[in-house]
Amino acid sequence: MKNLILLVILSISGLLFSQENLLKYVNPFIGTEKMGHTYPGATAPFGSVQLSPDTDTISYELNGKYNPDVYKYCAGYRYEDKTITGFSHTHFSGTGHSDLGDFLVMPTVGELKMNPGTSQNPDSGFRSRFSHHEEKASPGYYAVKLKDYNINAELTATTRVGVHQYTFPESKDAHVILDLMSGIYNYDDKTVWTYVRVVNDSTITGYRQTNGWARTRTVYFAMKFSKPFKTYGRKDFDTNQVYRGFWRKFNQNENFPEIAGQKIRMHFDFDTEEGEKLMIKFALSPVSQKNALENMLAETPGWNFEEIKNKTEREWGKELEKIQIKASEKDKINFYTALYHTYLSPTVYMDVNGEYKGLDQEIHKAEGFTNYTTFSIWDTYRALHPLFNIIQPERNNDMVKSMMKHYEQISLNMLPIWSHYANDNWCMSGYHSVSVVADAIVKGVYDGDENQALNACIETANKRFYEGIGDYIDLGYIPDEHNSTSVSNALEYAYDDWAIAQAAKKLGRKDVYKVFMKRSQNWKNNFDPVIGMMRPRLKDGSFRNNFDINETHGMGFIEGNSWNYSFFVPHDPVGLATAMGGKKKFAEKLNTLFTMHLPDEFFANTEDISREGILGGYVHGNEPAHHVAYLYNWSSEPWKTQETVRHILEMQYKPTPDGLGGNDDCGQMSAWYIFSAMGFYPVAPGSENYSLGSPLVDEANINFGNGKEFKIKAINNSAKNVYVQKVMLNGVEITDFTLNHFDLIQGGELVFYMGGKPKKK
Amino acid sequence: MKNLILLVILSISGLLFSQENLLKYVNPFIGTEKMGHTYPGATAPFGSVQLSPDTDTISYELNGKYNPDVYKYCAGYRYEDKTITGFSHTHFSGTGHSDLGDFLVMPTVGELKMNPGTSQNPDSGFRSRFSHHEEKASPGYYAVKLKDYNINAELTATTRVGVHQYTFPESKDAHVILDLMSGIYNYDDKTVWTYVRVVNDSTITGYRQTNGWARTRTVYFAMKFSKPFKTYGRKDFDTNQVYRGFWRKFNQNENFPEIAGQKIRMHFDFDTEEGEKLMIKFALSPVSQKNALENMLAETPGWNFEEIKNKTEREWGKELEKIQIKASEKDKINFYTALYHTYLSPTVYMDVNGEYKGLDQEIHKAEGFTNYTTFSIWDTYRALHPLFNIIQPERNNDMVKSMMKHYEQISLNMLPIWSHYANDNWCMSGYHSVSVVADAIVKGVYDGDENQALNACIETANKRFYEGIGDYIDLGYIPDEHNSTSVSNALEYAYDDWAIAQAAKKLGRKDVYKVFMKRSQNWKNNFDPVIGMMRPRLKDGSFRNNFDINETHGMGFIEGNSWNYSFFVPHDPVGLATAMGGKKKFAEKLNTLFTMHLPDEFFANTEDISREGILGGYVHGNEPAHHVAYLYNWSSEPWKTQETVRHILEMQYKPTPDGLGGNDDCGQMSAWYIFSAMGFYPVAPGSENYSLGSPLVDEANINFGNGKEFKIKAINNSAKNVYVQKVMLNGVEITDFTLNHFDLIQGGELVFYMGGKPKKK
Repeated sequence: MKNLILLVILSISGLLFSQENLLKYVNPFIGTEKMGHTYPGATAPFGSVQLSPDTDTISYELNGKYNPDVYKYCAGYRYEDKTITGFSHTHFSGTGHSDLGDFLVMPTVGELKMNPGTSQNPDSGFRSRFSHHEEKASPGYYAVKLKDYNINAELTATTRVGVHQYTFPESKDAHVILDLMSGIYNYDDKTVWTYVRVVNDSTITGYRQTNGWARTRTVYFAMKFSKPFKTYGRKDFDTNQVYRGFWRKFNQNENFPEIAGQKIRMHFDFDTEEGEKLMIKFALSPVSQKNALENMLAETPGWNFEEIKNKTEREWGKELEKIQIKASEKDKINFYTALYHTYLSPTVYMDVNGEYKGLDQEIHKAEGFTNYTTFSIWDTYRALHPLFNIIQPERNNDMVKSMMKHYEQISLNMLPIWSHYANDNWCMSGYHSVSVVADAIVKGVYDGDENQALNACIETANKRFYEGIGDYIDLGYIPDEHNSTSVSNALEYAYDDWAIAQAAKKLGRKDVYKVFMKRSQNWKNNFDPVIGMMRPRLKDGSFRNNFDINETHGMGFIEGNSWNYSFFVPHDPVGLATAMGGKKKFAEKLNTLFTMHLPDEFFANTEDISREGILGGYVHGNEPAHHVAYLYNWSSEPWKTQETVRHILEMQYKPTPDGLGGNDDCGQMSAWYIFSAMGFYPVAPGSENYSLGSPLVDEANINFGNGKEFKIKAINNSAKNVYVQKVMLNGVEITDFTLNHFDLIQGGELVFYMGGKPKKK
Repeated sequence: MKNLILLVILSISGLLFSQENLLKYVNPFIGTEKMGHTYPGATAPFGSVQLSPDTDTISYELNGKYNPDVYKYCAGYRYEDKTITGFSHTHFSGTGHSDLGDFLVMPTVGELKMNPGTSQNPDSGFRSRFSHHEEKASPGYYAVKLKDYNINAELTATTRVGVHQYTFPESKDAHVILDLMSGIYNYDDKTVWTYVRVVNDSTITGYRQTNGWARTRTVYFAMKFSKPFKTYGRKDFDTNQVYRGFWRKFNQNENFPEIAGQKIRMHFDFDTEEGEKLMIKFALSPVSQKNALENMLAETPGWNFEEIKNKTEREWGKELEKIQIKASEKDKINFYTALYHTYLSPTVYMDVNGEYKGLDQEIHKAEGFTNYTTFSIWDTYRALHPLFNIIQPERNNDMVKSMMKHYEQISLNMLPIWSHYANDNWCMSGYHSVSVVADAIVKGVYDGDENQALNACIETANKRFYEGIGDYIDLGYIPDEHNSTSVSNALEYAYDDWAIAQAAKKLGRKDVYKVFMKRSQNWKNNFDPVIGMMRPRLKDGSFRNNFDINETHGMGFIEGNSWNYSFFVPHDPVGLATAMGGKKKFAEKLNTLFTMHLPDEFFANTEDISREGILGGYVHGNEPAHHVAYLYNWSSEPWKTQETVRHILEMQYKPTPDGLGGNDDCGQMSAWYIFSAMGFYPVAPGSENYSLGSPLVDEANINFGNGKEFKIKAINNSAKNVYVQKVMLNGVEITDFTLNHFDLIQGGELVFYMGGKPKKK
């Protein structure tokens, strides 16, 4: 009977329909070395909890100055490190700035140490040595041997609960450290406040409040041990604690259940038998301790680690099976790891009872949708959200709803720039939420009030005080004197305006369409016809003199030089090609980009990437050029899209810890891979059309979950046969390198016929 | 028709039944000079908001050391000061340590100043000079002319809303400062965090979080102006703000609605006409911004200052009329000001929707009771709560319920020591909540589960780790080596234990009664029969050698020396008199106390009082001896109670700003006055009996609001005729100096026959 029930569950979860377990192709270590900034720990798809090892304690400041080493630790874990300081519960995947790392937990035996110690001298603190030979990671599971303590640590997670299982040696002196000070991108004052309440001999609740990348952020927790601790205590590292004297009437450092302060570490002490497994369930909530307890009870009612892990693995299986491919083992690893990375964020930001903290720092209840946070939209509007419109339309619908709530709750009344745990950290340029909203409207994915959503886009695009928008509206460009990234801002606004126009068109709002189509042509105002490149303009209308097209810093751009941004007109490639002198000159300019040598002096100022992350002057490790390989389709040499895309797929994604050439950026780099590996890409989200490239996989089968499937086949495909000879959609040839979204989602078959030579007609 | 409605309202409010407006006898300035620590501002009875001027900005620390001047500013206002820094919304009344002072608001005209400036040079900041000639205060109303700006400031308040009315001169440069850093007992790091949200051109919401006397405290607010501001801005005084760079993409200091930080001041700017009245409604909530807005809407829907003020004045009238007296003008002022002071705390700590923050820092809903905070119980268990059992039984019932919630919510599972905005600051000794609970049970005031309440008392009395309770239980005293206030702790525990026993007796729980009656005799273990005084005892059982009965500090006591604490056996005066050698010796010892001279060297170490606050060695300004004048009733010279009480009433309470000889201590000093002025006092709360003294008033009429009244008359009373010749209760003579509570509340008449000479029989 039990087996029958299991069978039914497996059937519902879809596992039985898959030929194979796709989880085995996911390697969470990919990107944990060099610039990927991914984490290897345990999480559920889009989970609120990312329970992952942190391998050092790097401060944001060192001797009063920015510490450049902090950047490497955006995801907490560095593959090259030799020690683990503990396992914390929140991590960004692939970001180029960071925060989080809440609630570091570390099991130890022997002398109680209340400091993490240093990597040079691990014995000076509670950290432990580890080895990659005794480390495993797969979706929803991470395990490592903590050598210094002979403790096997295993981690798994549900959406809102991190679950630890520590196998201890025999000890009369076993401890679990709960470090409430530790965090990623830490700073002396980043932890604003922590509160801890020891409810009983195995339950602890509380919260941690930070002032980091998110200005005002509080995470609540509930922690339960599988067996009672014998004693516990805290160490308070705050030397400035106010009125400490009043609390000295009795010993508040040992076995005292009411704890609050800025800099607190706690320890819980146990006797353990040889091989005894101690479990910890650690639930998070954006709202309250009570909700954290509720989340724990709802998602992890029992104490069976394997059962919890298996359930999360089934969820991963279900999500990964949405695209089944035929490809080499290596490509399967790259593909499914990329797909895994696209499912790591945005993250659910809501309790099981529907409550969440809004941008107004008040408690709200999500009615009829799941609230999400961690929107790194400057990155993810490009390919991640378009990918979701294909394989995660329900979630993307909810993500747009979350953006609309953000807009309603923030007193600025703006759609999010970078939505971050009930904050906007306003990181990066543009107002690209409008692209995500427009794309969801155009593709029929958003089921809320579309006109209201369009109004939110319009209001956002008219915030005159925000990064030069007033100038942009008045002049059609942003004077270089007013803004240090005037060109990239204006170019991105122009694209965003076009996206707004597309949604307006779909909704029949002609006036809006007209206004924003006009604004979308503003890219021309920063295009200097003399040099044929984008260039900052001054208040008086003239182009700036002191200018270098190879330089990233101080030239009017962000995360890109003029070479990369001059192609940033994703919505009007025809216009851009014309401005650059016609299709042939356009091809030549693209050729130059992809083949030039960027001298070291300029590379040094290129942000967020390693040397492997660039191709000529094309910087794949940063996002502004992500669509550029596809622009050849509008040039006289469209086959160059095919060879270039295949080249990038091979060069920039490798199945090794150092396999990502740039930050994964909350899944954008990975979403680029998924699209391109299947042979198409959303050059201008907000358009119904994808642009065709060259599929890496031999076959891909997109399962929409409604009985419909879209099959992609690449006949005669190989590492050499990267050139498309012919493409047939449901037996009809495609001649314009374009695939329509609605053709895609109604299901069907796209067949690429590949060859070793470009088809130059 | 309108008049008729008003008439009905007035009738309901009881105003028509009073012969006169009692508000005129209340002088809120009494106690604002010297040691009273009262505030003159506007508040409603037991209101959450105490909107009152602050007259300086004193730091808790000066050059890294405790600043003794801060003590004077416990209530924010010093009568001797010449400038006002602004009007803040929360104040304690009469405390000897402090906190609060949230949300300082200051109207100015002319150059915008974002610092308060100094008292030596008021022009250096936004503070203003003022004069007592242009200042008024009455219950629920405060007004002052801000000389530097020619602004008339008027304040009133409802339970949860402070209402400001500022009459401006003509100006193109009028401002309202909202200072979120300012606070009482301030400290550089006391303000943990503030959040401000400018909702629209006249509404602001947010919160302020502090780490002061209350360790973890957050107050939410909603502020509305009666007319839109033209511009606004903030100044951020935090030099350590994290990731400030990211927020510099656009100007966040001017007209930017999303504000958060540790050290924020804001300004709102207006054009004003000559004589233009600008109103501000400022609502508080312990829970959320939304609740603050709800509180505002519920309590102050309109913009009529007079109407709001009149309503609060009617509430004050209703509360003051509960006792009507015949007395001299001076005594009426003292009496009704004292009565007013007894109604200032505990304070309502709950929104209009019933929500409040619990000791677990979570949101709770009060079902069927009003939740209160600000329980300075070491002070108020003595006379304030007993007074409430007579004239505020419903509120006292709710206060006990609030204590029970405190007990349930704090993970310590203890009844409150000093309940302070969802915190316990654990200030002062004993576990006197049990006295309040027991008194309410014994007097039939508590309508909750009495056995559960008794269990909470028992659990609290058995917290072994708390201030020597373990020792006290094991040894019957606390070894001097273990605790620096071992004697006062043990004496107070012994009384508290007796109170628990009384409740147990009432509930028929004989075992509990037995255990706690036994514990209540522990006072004997600190009584040294050789010197006939209380004295610290060492671990080995011997009395400490190095000991001075005149010294307050370091002798085993808190806020009292051995002279004052040796009489602290309120529950067993017969036993104490016996221990001291019988009734005659007892009288002699009391005589010595009241007539001795306390040398300056010892007075200097007596806390919280002025020279006028002591009488011989008796320190009325501190609480431990408050019952002592009544102990003569158990001696061979009971008439000394009468003359001493009358002497204290005259000496320690004067109708002037410097009229209080010690801290009013959240109403305890005033409650002593009310009881004693009516001729009786609760020597041992938990007992049904009051001990008789000598009434100051000629008549007092206690109106129970249920149709019953208790009348007290003093025949032939005068400043000289302080001796009671005979007392008749409903025509029957009282011979044991005892009035029973149940006789009192069933209504009746108590007649004192006074004379100029003691009746020595």
